[in-house]
Amino acid sequence: MGYFRENIEKLAGYEPGFQPKAADVVKLNTNENPYPPSPEVVKAVAAMSAEGLRRYPDPTADAFREAAGQLHGLGPEFIMCCNGGDDLLTIAFRAFCDENRAVAYPVPTYSLYAVLAKLQNCRAIEIAFDAEYNLPPKLVGTAATLTIVCNPNAPSGTFISAGELACLADELSGVLLIDEAYVDFADDNCAGLVKEFDNVIVLRSMSKGYSLAGIRFGYAMANPALIDGLMKVKDSYNVDAVAIAAATAAISDQAYFRDNVERVKKDRKTLIANLESLKFKVMDSSSNFLLARCVNGNAGEVYNSLAERNIYVRYFNLPGLNDKVRITVGTSEQNEKLISALKEIVS
Amino acid sequence: MGYFRENIEKLAGYEPGFQPKAADVVKLNTNENPYPPSPEVVKAVAAMSAEGLRRYPDPTADAFREAAGQLHGLGPEFIMCCNGGDDLLTIAFRAFCDENRAVAYPVPTYSLYAVLAKLQNCRAIEIAFDAEYNLPPKLVGTAATLTIVCNPNAPSGTFISAGELACLADELSGVLLIDEAYVDFADDNCAGLVKEFDNVIVLRSMSKGYSLAGIRFGYAMANPALIDGLMKVKDSYNVDAVAIAAATAAISDQAYFRDNVERVKKDRKTLIANLESLKFKVMDSSSNFLLARCVNGNAGEVYNSLAERNIYVRYFNLPGLNDKVRITVGTSEQNEKLISALKEIVS
Repeated sequence: MGYFRENIEKLAGYEPGFQPKAADVVKLNTNENPYPPSPEVVKAVAAMSAEGLRRYPDPTADAFREAAGQLHGLGPEFIMCCNGGDDLLTIAFRAFCDENRAVAYPVPTYSLYAVLAKLQNCRAIEIAFDAEYNLPPKLVGTAATLTIVCNPNAPSGTFISAGELACLADELSGVLLIDEAYVDFADDNCAGLVKEFDNVIVLRSMSKGYSLAGIRFGYAMANPALIDGLMKVKDSYNVDAVAIAAATAAISDQAYFRDNVERVKKDRKTLIANLESLKFKVMDSSSNFLLARCVNGNAGEVYNSLAERNIYVRYFNLPGLNDKVRITVGTSEQNEKLISALKEIVS
Repeated sequence: MGYFRENIEKLAGYEPGFQPKAADVVKLNTNENPYPPSPEVVKAVAAMSAEGLRRYPDPTADAFREAAGQLHGLGPEFIMCCNGGDDLLTIAFRAFCDENRAVAYPVPTYSLYAVLAKLQNCRAIEIAFDAEYNLPPKLVGTAATLTIVCNPNAPSGTFISAGELACLADELSGVLLIDEAYVDFADDNCAGLVKEFDNVIVLRSMSKGYSLAGIRFGYAMANPALIDGLMKVKDSYNVDAVAIAAATAAISDQAYFRDNVERVKKDRKTLIANLESLKFKVMDSSSNFLLARCVNGNAGEVYNSLAERNIYVRYFNLPGLNDKVRITVGTSEQNEKLISALKEIVS
């Protein structure tokens, strides 16, 4: 063709997890919450008026910013809404990185970071985690203008303490983006750091803890000066009127949210125990998924055998990951189906 | 701060049109359709299930692509969905432009193009329209890798024939993006060019003709090789499940759409006649707005006097535009209120 920039021509593109269209599958491959969103959300969507659909949405989604600010003890000026967490990641790469401004992140991690670096044509400094997924000390001193830590990390589910990330923020000369897409299932988080550090952005998603992957809604928390700069980069009307109504209803129903998250955390514990009894080696998880090493058998084959039974998990054919499968914590019933199938497969 | 790229630090940012929160205003400033979307859309949104909200949407929104393809006589491989037309513009700048690859477009036009050029740090070659807004011959030979023609043009409402744009596509070495956000109100369009030329992208929006500014949905039509490249740049899940359902319902109800558009076109004719009787000089419009020159009086003052009466139009304090106001065609009742107010103001 020759019409595209060279970096785009060469790019393979990000491959999202398989989204089977059949309804009768056990779908444990893309980390959705297995339980439905709050009934208040369904009501808010159903109540959407023709007038709300006709007019442009609020460009800054202030209703949501107020609600999220209240939850986190922050003013709305610390918050920016985005079209899913991926929108914020794209905005951050465009705001901070270019040919002369690198990004750094520990690997293995969310594979979108590498794709966005190629799209933005910036150097990606990838620093390997150790086997326990501790924060790599080498992240300090890369001189990257953007450092990303996915926490809990995908696909390991492991967690780095807020204290360690505060030390990292303090030592970096550039921006630290903490991708907390999965933090609702952890015991701690870094929201508190945005008041303390002018270089920290915390990413949150409504897709996981709030069961709203379908509506594409996430938000950034950061110092207002950072938020102002990010606002210049985002599309003016990046979140739509229905999504604003749904996300605001969801974040305002904390009782439902907490119950939902506690159920997943309880199911996670049971699932880990059951996988370990089948001789899988499972990483300690602070998220709604598990990275399980197949001690008896080949991970790719386990993936295929499950898919044949209409049970979908995720398999990454990458160094350090190709002996493991990533399993989303499903409903108790889904988890039991998985365990039954695995019993057949590994025996 | 120093955290941002220099081009971002220097940028003023795009200023979206004022979105008054009060309900009792006559809002003729951001070119929404004055009539509600199809009842089928409201039904589709209300029918959204908790399950549809919980799961990730179809990353390529194939249901919409099929419906739009059928309408335009194109296969779905010619179509890409996006989070409003602005999402496609952002994607195109990221795909085709950089420090060494310029964008070109005639001016005055949609002011977002200049902002996106600054965000992407590419040179913007702005070529002035003549007083009749004819296609500037100088657009050929700029060597820009991306040329954009807004057609009908905003804020003039003027239209360039498909034949002239076909000749331009043929002569350009780079990509020609025809921004047809307002084309539903014109008598012709360029959809047919995407089969003929491998370098043409046609942008469509559901915000105007389909009355769906609230849901953020647009689409690109182009040769499948161009679509494949653009797909690599877009966020994986750039359009949400509710928006897909709403947009698919809207584009499938062509009878409602056509009635709606015909009403606006009829109201446009009446509004032009009434403005001319008040000694405004109005450009011939193929869109749902009018650019009206204030022969008697100062355009900025007309804008302010209308705003004091809770009637909002758009005023651009820019060369060639600062003697005019841009007026969205509203409902017959809104248009009458505007005319009554203008009678008081200009007399």
